[in-house]
Amino acid sequence: MWDRLWVNVHLATDARGTGQPGGDDFGIILNGAIAAHGGRIAWVGSQADLPGAPEALAREVTSCDGRWMTPGLVDPHTHLVFGGDRSAEFAERLQGVSYQDIACRGGGILSTVRATRAASEEELLHLTLKRARRLVANGVTTVEIKSGYGLTLEDELKQLRVARAVSRHVPLRVHTTFLGAHALPPEFTGRQGDYVAHLCETMLPAVAEAGLADSVDAFCETIAFQPAEVERIFEAARRWNLPLRLHADQMSDLGGGHLAARWGALSADHVEYASEASVRAMAESGTVAMLLPGAFYFVREHQQPPVALFREHGVPMGLATDCNPGTSPILTPTAVMNMACTLFRLTPGEALAGHTHIAAKALGLDALTGRLRPGMAADMALWDMSGPHELSYWIGGLVPQTRIFGGMPDRNLT
Amino acid sequence: MWDRLWVNVHLATDARGTGQPGGDDFGIILNGAIAAHGGRIAWVGSQADLPGAPEALAREVTSCDGRWMTPGLVDPHTHLVFGGDRSAEFAERLQGVSYQDIACRGGGILSTVRATRAASEEELLHLTLKRARRLVANGVTTVEIKSGYGLTLEDELKQLRVARAVSRHVPLRVHTTFLGAHALPPEFTGRQGDYVAHLCETMLPAVAEAGLADSVDAFCETIAFQPAEVERIFEAARRWNLPLRLHADQMSDLGGGHLAARWGALSADHVEYASEASVRAMAESGTVAMLLPGAFYFVREHQQPPVALFREHGVPMGLATDCNPGTSPILTPTAVMNMACTLFRLTPGEALAGHTHIAAKALGLDALTGRLRPGMAADMALWDMSGPHELSYWIGGLVPQTRIFGGMPDRNLT
Ligand SMILES: [Zn+2]
Ligand SMILES: [Zn+2]
Repeated sequence: MWDRLWVNVHLATDARGTGQPGGDDFGIILNGAIAAHGGRIAWVGSQADLPGAPEALAREVTSCDGRWMTPGLVDPHTHLVFGGDRSAEFAERLQGVSYQDIACRGGGILSTVRATRAASEEELLHLTLKRARRLVANGVTTVEIKSGYGLTLEDELKQLRVARAVSRHVPLRVHTTFLGAHALPPEFTGRQGDYVAHLCETMLPAVAEAGLADSVDAFCETIAFQPAEVERIFEAARRWNLPLRLHADQMSDLGGGHLAARWGALSADHVEYASEASVRAMAESGTVAMLLPGAFYFVREHQQPPVALFREHGVPMGLATDCNPGTSPILTPTAVMNMACTLFRLTPGEALAGHTHIAAKALGLDALTGRLRPGMAADMALWDMSGPHELSYWIGGLVPQTRIFGGMPDRNLT
Repeated sequence: MWDRLWVNVHLATDARGTGQPGGDDFGIILNGAIAAHGGRIAWVGSQADLPGAPEALAREVTSCDGRWMTPGLVDPHTHLVFGGDRSAEFAERLQGVSYQDIACRGGGILSTVRATRAASEEELLHLTLKRARRLVANGVTTVEIKSGYGLTLEDELKQLRVARAVSRHVPLRVHTTFLGAHALPPEFTGRQGDYVAHLCETMLPAVAEAGLADSVDAFCETIAFQPAEVERIFEAARRWNLPLRLHADQMSDLGGGHLAARWGALSADHVEYASEASVRAMAESGTVAMLLPGAFYFVREHQQPPVALFREHGVPMGLATDCNPGTSPILTPTAVMNMACTLFRLTPGEALAGHTHIAAKALGLDALTGRLRPGMAADMALWDMSGPHELSYWIGGLVPQTRIFGGMPDRNLT
């Protein structure tokens, strides 16, 4: 007997690419049923094909009154653990204060580093849980969380411990990423090579030994870390068997997408400036192109990511909030999906795939979550909508009626 | 003794214009207190100045733990009553189907007209209440609702009755607007003059006699109604003493802003293409420039509204969701505020003013709501944030912790 069974529900089991007008981009089963047992999906299909009466099949049966069930959303790129607040800086920039002036007064990313270092682990956890609960309310069941605002061994470990602790307080699957190469810490001004060496020889091994990172990331950009430095970091990560990902080609084409692909990275993220050579290499290596329309919108970028090339070469396109205080303050994946459609012209099918199984693939978790398929985790979201197109339709994002994590529907989380 | 008193709360009593970096754009009272009695604000000030112990002053005292209270949000331009669903059309357009093809198959605004006509009053109310509850959850206490998808007398009356019914089911103040001149109904193809005559001589008087409209609106545009037609409609509305508003200068400069100002309209809405002559006229007449960044974003408009001119000439800038199924599917005013800042470079102070007292002014209700001031309606929203800048900071919009309407905190509304 199953733990739980949902009936009178339409299912979007498996979101897909562009498809054709009128075609099924979502793996739709109308008038479906779905069962969970032991935290996994036990059965998916047409309600008419259930092997018995619902009450005879499960201990708990829920009628969904014709609502839609999708896989739980996956948010595969966030900087969720940070101290401080940059909304006042946002306001100052709108009042005409230049970025230079703000940076001279200690604003920008280094203000977040200072505040994150100054915050106690308890404070950081409190702030992070608030943000995690908003992701949960918005339908997220799996989230990636990066370090990168500590930039000392101690503070990076603190951020990663907070990230790990999230899943003990909130029903969320958390994938952690060590992003020591996010910015040059002020202590190392003028000595970037020394910081990279320190990162490779001291920080990364300590993080890995503590088991606090599920992957390693770096920010490859003219104003951040150069390709040769990224390769040293990837080399060190490989010694610890840690999967790779890369902030690549966001403001210029440094060949970051190609570099990520050469190293078999799970994802190359941002990629507005990725060249066709990078796109080809990513296709070969199966590296996900992680599109981050929140940052594109917030910084008023004009360079579009090469969506047509990604489609042509078969590079899977993922989506993420990139939640961070400086360039992408957003905790609403369905609003990201709307921006992906409106700004990048993705289809609603591509957008849902990008925030479900392709996002899961970028975390190495696509066998576990991202589709409604027997054996996979019973991570789902239930939506009051006319059909799955509507998930990408509302500016500001649609909010689910409820969320199911490991077969358990959410109760009140606040 | 007051009905209710909120303490340990920071207050943003009165949002203002651009101001200076570091200045107070919000009428801030830190460590404040606010009391409600008989649905009105009875006292506002610093908690230290309360004329006694809180428990001695009010029957119910709520500690807000340092959260922020703002005026309830006002959404002064919505098309909330509609049947049907255009998310599939949104998807088709992203799959490359042209607007022409969609229109030929009966899509576009006329599909909404068909679905609205076909829906029963009960169905329409059900759909509208769902949308109204999302506005409420997002902090709205006053909303304007237009007709304009019926386009027959009977169906326009039906839409307006539904709009009026909203406030009997949801704690919201509703201002209704007759927008018979939204589009030419198909029955009148080739006979636009006849429709305008019918509207002025039959529809508008019937709507006015039924007391179903608080104002009259028209869509002034090359593809809709021409300035001379709008003047006939305004003339008719004036006979019934109905305030005016106008969809003006959205896609081209037809002098709509100037026309609205000449007629003393409460607001001219969209106004991306408004000329300096229109801006000057609006300043003189006190007509609100209603900015609708949701539609700007969704249709990927490039023409910015003349924000610098509005500032220079002292035209108050309002904000609204413009919620409608074709060009602005959004029910999140704080996301509108973020778009106003990000896309139009409004300041967070201007954005909050735009969605509170300036929005109320556009409804003729600024003596009643939009500020925290003794004697005004106790319509408020409570936010967990670092300061009022944060209201405009989150892409996808910040959600209030709770909302207070006429002095009553919301219970669960679903
Ligand atoms: Zn990032
Ligand atoms: Zn409108």
